[in-house]
Order: sequence, then structure tokens, then C-alpha cells
Amino acid sequence: MSGRCRDYGVVRNHSSPYCRLRSVDLRSVRWTSGFWAKRFKQCHEESLPHLWELLSDPDRGHALTNLRIAAGLEDGEFVGTHWQDEWLYKWLEAAASIYAITGDPALDRRMDEVIGLIGQAQEPDGYIATQTTVRGWKRWQSIHHHELYVMGHLITAACLHRRITGKVSLLEIACKAADYIGDTFGGRDPALAHFPFNPTIIMASVELYRTTGERKYLDLANLFIEMRGSSPEGSDVNQDAVPLREETEVVGHSVLSTYLYAGAADAYMETGDPSLLDALQRLWRDLTERKIYLTGGCCALHHGLSIRGHEVHEAVGPAYYLPSATAYNETCAQIGNLMWNWRMLAISADSRYADVMERCLYNSILSGIGLDGASWFYTNVLRWHGREHELLSGDARQRFQPGQKDICCPSNLLRTIAEWHSYLYSVSEEGLWVNHYGGSAFDGPLADGRPVKVTQETDFPWRGEVRLTIELPGPAEFALVLRIPEWAEGAGVEVNGDPAAATPGSYVRLHRTWADGDAVFLSLPMPPRLVEAHPRVEELRGQVAVVRGPLVYCLESVDLPEGVRISEVHVPQDVCWSPRHDPSLLGGVTVLEGEVRRVPEGDWAGRLYRPLRPVPGEGVRARLIPLYAWANRGISEMTVWMPAC
Amino acid sequence: MSGRCRDYGVVRNHSSPYCRLRSVDLRSVRWTSGFWAKRFKQCHEESLPHLWELLSDPDRGHALTNLRIAAGLEDGEFVGTHWQDEWLYKWLEAAASIYAITGDPALDRRMDEVIGLIGQAQEPDGYIATQTTVRGWKRWQSIHHHELYVMGHLITAACLHRRITGKVSLLEIACKAADYIGDTFGGRDPALAHFPFNPTIIMASVELYRTTGERKYLDLANLFIEMRGSSPEGSDVNQDAVPLREETEVVGHSVLSTYLYAGAADAYMETGDPSLLDALQRLWRDLTERKIYLTGGCCALHHGLSIRGHEVHEAVGPAYYLPSATAYNETCAQIGNLMWNWRMLAISADSRYADVMERCLYNSILSGIGLDGASWFYTNVLRWHGREHELLSGDARQRFQPGQKDICCPSNLLRTIAEWHSYLYSVSEEGLWVNHYGGSAFDGPLADGRPVKVTQETDFPWRGEVRLTIELPGPAEFALVLRIPEWAEGAGVEVNGDPAAATPGSYVRLHRTWADGDAVFLSLPMPPRLVEAHPRVEELRGQVAVVRGPLVYCLESVDLPEGVRISEVHVPQDVCWSPRHDPSLLGGVTVLEGEVRRVPEGDWAGRLYRPLRPVPGEGVRARLIPLYAWANRGISEMTVWMPAC
Repeated sequence: MSGRCRDYGVVRNHSSPYCRLRSVDLRSVRWTSGFWAKRFKQCHEESLPHLWELLSDPDRGHALTNLRIAAGLEDGEFVGTHWQDEWLYKWLEAAASIYAITGDPALDRRMDEVIGLIGQAQEPDGYIATQTTVRGWKRWQSIHHHELYVMGHLITAACLHRRITGKVSLLEIACKAADYIGDTFGGRDPALAHFPFNPTIIMASVELYRTTGERKYLDLANLFIEMRGSSPEGSDVNQDAVPLREETEVVGHSVLSTYLYAGAADAYMETGDPSLLDALQRLWRDLTERKIYLTGGCCALHHGLSIRGHEVHEAVGPAYYLPSATAYNETCAQIGNLMWNWRMLAISADSRYADVMERCLYNSILSGIGLDGASWFYTNVLRWHGREHELLSGDARQRFQPGQKDICCPSNLLRTIAEWHSYLYSVSEEGLWVNHYGGSAFDGPLADGRPVKVTQETDFPWRGEVRLTIELPGPAEFALVLRIPEWAEGAGVEVNGDPAAATPGSYVRLHRTWADGDAVFLSLPMPPRLVEAHPRVEELRGQVAVVRGPLVYCLESVDLPEGVRISEVHVPQDVCWSPRHDPSLLGGVTVLEGEVRRVPEGDWAGRLYRPLRPVPGEGVRARLIPLYAWANRGISEMTVWMPAC
Repeated sequence: MSGRCRDYGVVRNHSSPYCRLRSVDLRSVRWTSGFWAKRFKQCHEESLPHLWELLSDPDRGHALTNLRIAAGLEDGEFVGTHWQDEWLYKWLEAAASIYAITGDPALDRRMDEVIGLIGQAQEPDGYIATQTTVRGWKRWQSIHHHELYVMGHLITAACLHRRITGKVSLLEIACKAADYIGDTFGGRDPALAHFPFNPTIIMASVELYRTTGERKYLDLANLFIEMRGSSPEGSDVNQDAVPLREETEVVGHSVLSTYLYAGAADAYMETGDPSLLDALQRLWRDLTERKIYLTGGCCALHHGLSIRGHEVHEAVGPAYYLPSATAYNETCAQIGNLMWNWRMLAISADSRYADVMERCLYNSILSGIGLDGASWFYTNVLRWHGREHELLSGDARQRFQPGQKDICCPSNLLRTIAEWHSYLYSVSEEGLWVNHYGGSAFDGPLADGRPVKVTQETDFPWRGEVRLTIELPGPAEFALVLRIPEWAEGAGVEVNGDPAAATPGSYVRLHRTWADGDAVFLSLPMPPRLVEAHPRVEELRGQVAVVRGPLVYCLESVDLPEGVRISEVHVPQDVCWSPRHDPSLLGGVTVLEGEVRRVPEGDWAGRLYRPLRPVPGEGVRARLIPLYAWANRGISEMTVWMPAC
């Protein structure tokens, strides 16, 4: 085990030569107040133990039981999906991240116990995947057995555990697994060409390289990238029809694609291969200019065909295909997109990537977890017709409790919320970068090792005012680099009362010799705004959505006068939305209140078309809530997009 | 061979006890002038020989060559799709229908030659399907070999050929084939449960029963209906997951579903089984109230999932899913829908079924054939983005010429146009029914055998005035029953100058003692109208389409001022469309001219969403053409639905 490991963030790119921004230590950032402090607390105190309870329950999650059976400690049968193990590994990753902040010794002990069990379940040659071991199945018989997928998550969790606890127990298991994978795939057996179907192994291998310094793990990541499109039977469903470097279209399963691109970005950070970065930039433009939802959702299709005619599922749609009511938008796809954009941001220091992260996180990721921290959505629609809604992708009428299935999103959300604070700040030779906003404190070294403490006071995302206070042992010259989100038109920055220029959609660099107690005041105006979509998006023609700051709003039927249907609501182009913070509603949200137009639908019984009749509308009061908070008040109708009038 | 066969229409339901309306003899109706006279002439003189040339060409269609090889007259390999044979059978059906009117002896000789060849290609036990015979494949190995599909078309063609020519040559082949099928499927071998995948055999068997009087053929049809949903592996793709009588949703491949329903309606006509009619009425409501395009298209999905989660293709969409640009709407699906509705009309005498026939025929069926009569669309979209359009369902940029593939629609269109005149009139105990309009003459017996001649003078569909003149050997009491289409608000009828009531969406009965020379004048007002869609159709929210009479109109980019994009056009709710007939445009069409609003799109480069900005629009002149005539002037942009303003 190399001694190179130092304590850095979730993506340990401290020594990557092709990054403009470096992650900061997970422990150098803490939530202090507000939106995220509350969510982190809930994640620690409620979601983490709740998911532990489910996954360790032999009758529900069965994940721990599968490991015990594989370890020979219990008799029984494998129960669950082919990726049941990764529930535990993502739980471990989240636990390590929370432990980094809380230092909770009970959590440390529980992690040690689980790791001991994992070690016992690992086969002597390093292979570990209970879905095959317990059943006595032959290895590598089907890409859908997801053996590499679960091992990828194991390795990722191990790197973080090593970094945070200093212990090598899980890392040793991970290296053994990675060495086994290297032996298995290194010879490039054509029969195994499609096995990196669900490509967590790529991010994992790069991170293992960063953690251990062993070049072979970086080579392993590159091997898996290069296997894509290398065989004539490759399919678009897992981005396997065309070599990644030649691909021009984001295609296929959106969790697979975003994880692949995130892994390739990790590889680029270490190799600097320009053809890889070219491809990633090209694909990012394809996704963000033609295929992404306003909410950051990147998965229009439950099932369909790719542009090359391959059958795909849970997949990005064709260009400009963005239906609301049937949107799939699996929560994990948006988490993959967040991870990919985080890496692109590190590479480029281009604030557009942070804008996408923000859009995903506050809307199509957070909508995936109930306000109770214990219920989830697998898919994230933008319109819901209440009890009349027919959708076969699971019962999205109500948020679900994970049982033996549908386990990927809850633990993915768990680790994302547990790690989000580490995405707020980055460092570079220039200084300290503030990528995202939230009541927090950074207390750590700049890239050159000089210590700095910055306190961020804000009620973001409800208000756009942010006060940053600098604490220093003595004057120090560096830049404080603040992201001005693309939506923050009219943004202003003041340093100790002196204004500085701030352009939306960029970083503003405040380079100076800072003194202890210096204060920066950032103002990000958040007027509610109507947004329209590209005219090629036929599902959104003539419709508007309402956004305020990073939040996409929605209209839920419980917030309309009795008897008014969601579909009757039209939004005047000159509507005036009044923001009002209601601390007692939905855990505390800023609602938007205004007068919209109700255009009575009249009688549609038995007909699908009718002659257009000018109908006199009437003004009605409506209240919009942030999309992430929908479906927490029973079964309702909901819509993000509404006809403009 | 029974002598029961008499000369009746395409659906020979003359003696069906459960029909309110009976088909008339194909030869009792002739086109005299106008829209359909021209199309019938083109069908006879251009399309029929053109398709013959293609199908008999060994290098292109290869259909005749396959038969020759099967007959042992030539050496060679099978070339084409698994349903190559049915190209020839539908050609034969169209040829027989045209021969009925023209009496062209050359056509008769050609039919005889082909029938001789078919007889030689038939295997001794009655089986005939060159796709397996020529290849030496085992029979009944895959539902996708379409053996029953081609034999179904053979039988249908044979019934019509017998009826029109009086010859039994093809009918004998058909009976031999049907008897073989009866022997094969009569035992209900579970291994064959899914073979009536493409259910032409049902309509065919009922028609064979009608033609021969042999009850076993009706039993065979019922057997195939009852096989649906009888096995646990049945899929929604071919309506095989649920028994037809219990089904509540139109699902799956739309050619398969509409042919199945048409066949079941045929069976109902002969058996009067109320549970079958219940199911058909329920499914018809599901289709017309939730799943059909304004154009009559009934096939939203190229590929996707059914409501029960089965993979389906070329299929009806989920409820209210009606995208324009990606609409599949295979021409044959609408022809299937036309055939189904024709049977429902015969059963019920309910004019709503004729309304659906009309909507399909004039819009999503006729759009499938080029004005040259020699080029085709497989799919029928409602919006096209010109050269920028990406759609993987074939190259819909230009109409295609059938080669060895894509053969089903051209010959299906051919037979539909060749037979359409026989759908204009029906008879019942009450009298003569006029279901559809067009310059034509009916000269035949009423149901009780009394002769009557009715001449229909009209410029339909361009004008809604219809003059019907009655010729009788002497006074006769009967009803002349005229369909008032659902779109004909303000319709009026006059008998010899005396007005009678006429309610849109119904038949008006003019019961009296008619005298030679009596004249009925029907006025069906055709003001251009804006139509809106049900608010659940998210692709059509806030948009309008323009219809006039039976025609759906579209905007094609060549009819806009230079530089104006289709997507910039908004339609004022109070737009005034001026109809103008242009005999030199597109073979003679009535265009609609008016001032629409151009709302410049501005710059969308690199973005998918943007803040809504009120943009001052400007008036521009636009010209709309009937949808069926689009894509006859090069590659253009086209749209049926346009945002209202």
C-alpha cells in the first residue's frame, strides 16, 4: 500500500496535472446553517440509520444477509437484485463521509464490522459479488449480472474510507478485487467486451490509482474506456456502439452514460488525453443543448430506440424530445450528471458546469427524496395527473420505501447529500473558489498550503445574498473566486463595501491581499422568471415554466382553489409572482404567489379534439412550490410547464 | 364449391343477420368526375402497372420470381421480406377490383396467368408461402415468418376474384390453403398459440365462409380470435396478452390491432356474439377518445412499452400520447382502421364510424401516396423539420419507391383506392344509404331487389354541395339515407326544393315515394376551422390545427415568405382563412390563405431554454395545403399543429 494517500475530497484530484481546480478535504467544509445544514443532519440522523435498518433486515433489504451467506456464516439463498451489494457499498461511502464530519465512533465501529464481513465474503482470488457467489453461478455469464458494477462501488467506497479513516482494511479488499479484475479483463478476451456495461469501475479505478499511486489501476480505467465500441455487437444502450472518442451523440441508458463520461473525465484528469476531453465537451454540448430537461433531468425515455435504431431503456431521448408526464429521469442519472459536471468543472474552471450541477441537484435530484428523508422517487416527472395518471414505470403516485428492489437511488441520494458540502469549494494556484452557496465554513489550506478560513452566511437558495467573511492569521495575497450563476442577472459583489464587476455565467476573481476580517458581500438577484423552451421541443410549445434562482417551481393541485384543475391554469406573460417564505410549509419553502388565468376546460367527455372556442378566462390565485417538494402532501396533480397566455 | 356466391362488395355481408347495412356490388358504383375519378384512373393506369412492373422485376420486387422458384419453374433464391408474397396478393385484389369496373381483358389474362403460377407454387397439402418453401425452411418455426399473414391475403384476394370474375381458379387454391390451415391449427397445438401474429387470416376466413358457405371457415376465424390471450406468453405487441373479449385497452402494433378488430367485426356479423361487439365498441372508444391522431393516424410509437410493460413497436401510444414529429402512423395501420370502421358502420349504421373512415382516408392514408401515384410514405408524421429532421424510422424526407422491402403500404393503398367507390353506398331494408361523397353513380338493386339509379354530382372534398338525382323505372317507396358528417355544422338538405332537417354526426332519412327525376340537394358547409386537442395531450397544448370539411390542412415551408420558419408561425384565434381552389397546384387543391403572426425565434444557438421575452410579432401571409399533398415539392418543413395566439 503506497503512502501517497492524503486526505482530499470525494474526487481526489489534488495532484492531477490537467485540472484547474482541485477538490478540498471533505472535513474542511462544514454546514453551519440553513437549507443544507438541515438536510445533512437529516441524512446523518434519519436517512443513514433508516437505510441501514432496511439493508440489514433479512426480510427487506437482505444485503447484509447475502454477504453473510457468501462468507459462509449463514445458510440461505440470495435475495434481491443483481446489484444488491452496491446498496451496502454506497451506504458505506455515505457513512464514511458523515463520519468525516461527525467523528461518531459508533459509525466507525459499524463500518469496521461491515468491512470485516466483506473481507470474509470475498473469494480468495479477489472476486466479490454475492449475486453469483451465493447462487453458485458461473462468473461473467451475462452483462446483466452486474458483477463489475458492484465491485466498482466497492472500490469507490474503499478509497473514501481509506482517506477519511486512515484505515486500509477496505482498501486492501478493493485492491484485491481490482487486481482480480485487471487479470480477468487485461487480456481483452472478446467474450468479455461488453461486461463493463454499468461503468462504475472506471471512476473507481482512477480513484484507486489516486489513492494508491499504482499506475496499473489507471491503465485498468483506460482499458474499460477503450473497450467501448470495440466490438461489432456493441449497443447504444450502454454507449458501446461507437468508441467514446468518436461519439457525437449522447445515447442510451442515462445512468450508464453519465457514469461513463464521469469516469472518462477522471481518466482525462490523469492522462491529459485531448481526444477524450474533446469527446466529453462535444457530448456535453449535445446533452445540454438538445436533450436535458429544465430540471437537469437527462433521461426522457423509459423505453425506445436510439438514433442508430438500438433498443434502449431508461435512456436519454432523441434531440428535443422532452415530454413532461412520461419523463423517466431516474434520480441516479441526474446524480451521474452531477458527478460528470463536477469533474468537467474541475478540469475547466468553467462555471457552466457548476450551473448544471446546481440545476440537477436542486430539482431533479432532490425531488427524488421525500421531505421525511425516508421515501424516494425512482423517476422524476415534470407533470403528474394525479390518480388518473397512467405510467408503467413503477407507481410514481407516491414515494416508495426501498425493499428488495429499487435500491440504487436511495443510497445514491444518501451519499450525494452526505458529500455535497465538499463540492462547495475548490482550490487552485490562484486561490479559493466558491462554486456553490449555502451556510457553511471552509477551514483548510489553499493549494500552496497556506491556511484560510472563510465563513459563508446565506439563506440560499431562498435568498441570493451571501456574506463571506475571511479569517486569516495574517495578510495573504490570493484570489477569492466566486461563481456568478447564469441566472443571476444584475449580480453585484462588494469587497469591504467597494463594488466589483460580476458577470452572470462566470467566475468573478477577487485577487488582493486579504486581511483577517475582510468581508465580501455577494448579491444574486432572484426575481421569479418565466422560461420558454426551444421551439423544436414540441411538448413545450407555448408553455412556460417558473424559475427562481436555482429552483424550478411547480404548481401542485392542492395549491389551487377547490375545483380548479392544473390543466386549466394559464400563465399571463406579465404575471407578477410574489415570493413569500413560509417556514411552516413543506419544511420551510419560499412559495411564489400570483394571479393566473383559469381557462375552464369545458366538457371533454368522449372527445379528443374539438373546434377551438374562445373561452373567457378568469383570474385565480395560485401558489407555486419548489419542484423538489412536490408529492409530500398526498396524491396530487402537478405541473412544471404551463400554457402561457 | 358451393353455388352460394353472389356478386357483392369487398365485405360480402349480404346475408349477415347482424348487420344493419349491406355492402353493394363493386360494379354497381362508378366514379363519374372529380377527386376520386382522377385517383381511380391514376390507380388503374399508373399505379397498378407500376407496381406490377416492380413486383415482377426479378431485380427489384422479386415477388413473381419467388413464386416461380417455389413452383420449380426457375432456380434461384428467395429474395425479399417474409411477406413478399402478399404484395402480389394485394395487387391481385386491386386488379380484380379495377377489372370489375373496366372489364379490361388484358388484366383478366394477367390475373389468370398469375393464378396459374400460384397454383403451381402451392404445396400438395395446400400450404403456400414462398419465404419458407423456397428456402427449404421448416414450417411454423417463428411467428415472424408471417406464413399465415400471406395466406390470409391470398384468401381475401381469392374471394374477391371469384365474386368479380365468376372463376373459381384462385378460390380453389384458397380453399385448399384454408383447409390446410384448419388441419394445422384446429387441434390447438400450444406451440402454435402465437402464430396468428399478423391476423389477416381472420378477415380472410370469414370472407371465405361468406363466399363458399362452408361453416368450417367461420369456425376457423373464431378459432384464431379465441387463440388471442389464451397462452401465458402472449404479448401486447400482437394483442395476445388478454383475450379479446376482456381487453380494455387498444395496445400494440397498430396494423395487427386494426386487422384483428376488423376480423372480429366480420366474425360478429356472422355469429352475433354480443361479447365480441361489446369488446369492439369498448376498444373503439379507447382508440378514438384517447389514442388517435386528428388525421386518423393510430400509431404514435415507433418503439416503446405497452401499458402492461410489454415491448411494442409500430404501435398505438399510451393514452393522450400524440407527438407530431415522431408520429409513426404507418399507412397500413390507418387502412386497417378504415376496414375496421367500415365493418362497425355496417353493423351499427352509426355515422361516427364513417366519420373516422373519412378522417383516415383523406389525411393519414392519402398522405401515404405521392401525387405521382408511384411513390409512398411508410410513416405519416404531422410535423417535419426538413433537412434537420432526425428520425430513424426510415428516410421520411422523401417518398420512397418500393424495392424488395417496404412493400406492404403501396399495394395496400392500391387496393384501397381501387375499392373506395364501393364504400360510398350501402343498402338496407330501409333503402339506399350514402355513406361518403364523390362524383359517382350508383346503379344497382336495393336490398329487396328493386333497381334504382342515383347520380351524385359534387366537387367534394373541395366543396360541400352534393346533388343526388334519382332515376327509377317507376315510383318506389324507400328511404334515401344520407350521412351528415360530424364536421358539417349548419348542413341542409332539400328534396325537390323542400328543406329537411339534417343533424351533423348522424344519418338523415328521406323516406318517401320517389319518382324518376327527383333531386336531393345536400349542403355541407365547410368553413375552415381551428381545432384544439384534449388538454392531456401535452404535445398539442396551446396549439391549433386547421381543418376544412374532411381535410386536415398543413403549413409547408414553401408556402411561407422567404426566410420565415414553420416554427415561427402562430395562428391568431380570429384568423380568417380564405379558401381558393388552385387547379394548377398539386394536382388541383383548395388552399387556405390568411394572415398569420410571425414571432421571430431569435437566437437559440447553444441553448435549450431561455427567459421568456415578449416579442412583437408581425403579420405574414401563409398558405395552407391539404396534408395529403405535402412532400410533393421537394424537401420542406411541414406542420399540422401551430401555436395559437
